[in-house]
Amino acid sequence: MNMEEKKLSGEILFDGKVVRLEKDKVLCPNGRESYREVVRHNGGAAILCVTDDDKVLLIKQFRYCYNEVIWEIPAGKLEKGEDPFDAAMREFEEETGNKASELISLGNIYPTCGYSSEKIYLYLALDYKKTETHLDPDEVIITEFVPIARVKEMIVNNEIKDAKTICALTAYFLKYNK
Amino acid sequence: MNMEEKKLSGEILFDGKVVRLEKDKVLCPNGRESYREVVRHNGGAAILCVTDDDKVLLIKQFRYCYNEVIWEIPAGKLEKGEDPFDAAMREFEEETGNKASELISLGNIYPTCGYSSEKIYLYLALDYKKTETHLDPDEVIITEFVPIARVKEMIVNNEIKDAKTICALTAYFLKYNK
Repeated sequence: MNMEEKKLSGEILFDGKVVRLEKDKVLCPNGRESYREVVRHNGGAAILCVTDDDKVLLIKQFRYCYNEVIWEIPAGKLEKGEDPFDAAMREFEEETGNKASELISLGNIYPTCGYSSEKIYLYLALDYKKTETHLDPDEVIITEFVPIARVKEMIVNNEIKDAKTICALTAYFLKYNK
Repeated sequence: MNMEEKKLSGEILFDGKVVRLEKDKVLCPNGRESYREVVRHNGGAAILCVTDDDKVLLIKQFRYCYNEVIWEIPAGKLEKGEDPFDAAMREFEEETGNKASELISLGNIYPTCGYSSEKIYLYLALDYKKTETHLDPDEVIITEFVPIARVKEMIVNNEIKDAKTICALTAYFLKYNK
């Protein structure tokens, strides 16, 4: 069954630091024409760090879009064309002051498939060495190690709302039978 | 600790059918000024439907932003100011041809907190009545009932990539001990 939508034409409405907004005219499989608003994004990398004694490294950060401080795992944007693994190594150290010995892929997710092309690559860090944070001048980040049982409670209670964080934890729970 | 960023000024760069793009000048807690690109979105509602014999209703849909057919749970955009519950009831019937008897909240998620204000409200449907789909003229949707054990495999194998789908399943697994 043909489900594909073909691009007929497109325009770039905004090309910013984080997002590029495009509006495309598309041909739908039923022969009708329609428009798609697409946020183009380089993608991201996020790191779930779990310690030997089953604690998860969570960070607290103010998120302007929601006007809220929220719980997340460390993460960052990819540079154009950057390998997600390299971005994950860099962001983990910059945001938490820890250097991962190894990163294991937990797959990638599509955070909001209706209007954004962003893919977030998820990694697991099981071992790390204390180094130093290198925060951007406008970044304020609080780091906390939270027991897995409590993290599960935080998902059920909706205290953790960030999708990449829940998805990385889920892949870890299922893969490692936690 | 003050982590808040205050809006100093802002402009609307694009006001579309799905997204509104804004660029705000903000004052960071360290006293520096910076800019934030924000995609404003009315939010969404998504419905996890699980049958008595532990099967999950998944849909397959072409997503233009990724140029891919992906696995998801049924979902849709909120109208401006709409109650997420009403949107969930409507979208579930329109997309799958089933009417939920009841919807239980599974919380809400922030799909991509760095640049979008979108919140997706998650619901669980445990019972439904067969009715009729009412698809938009440009919507093509395939419906499938997939056993929970297989769905877990699909998360581990990264066959399911959609964040709201993984988050709704996770809340269900944890709340209902599945």
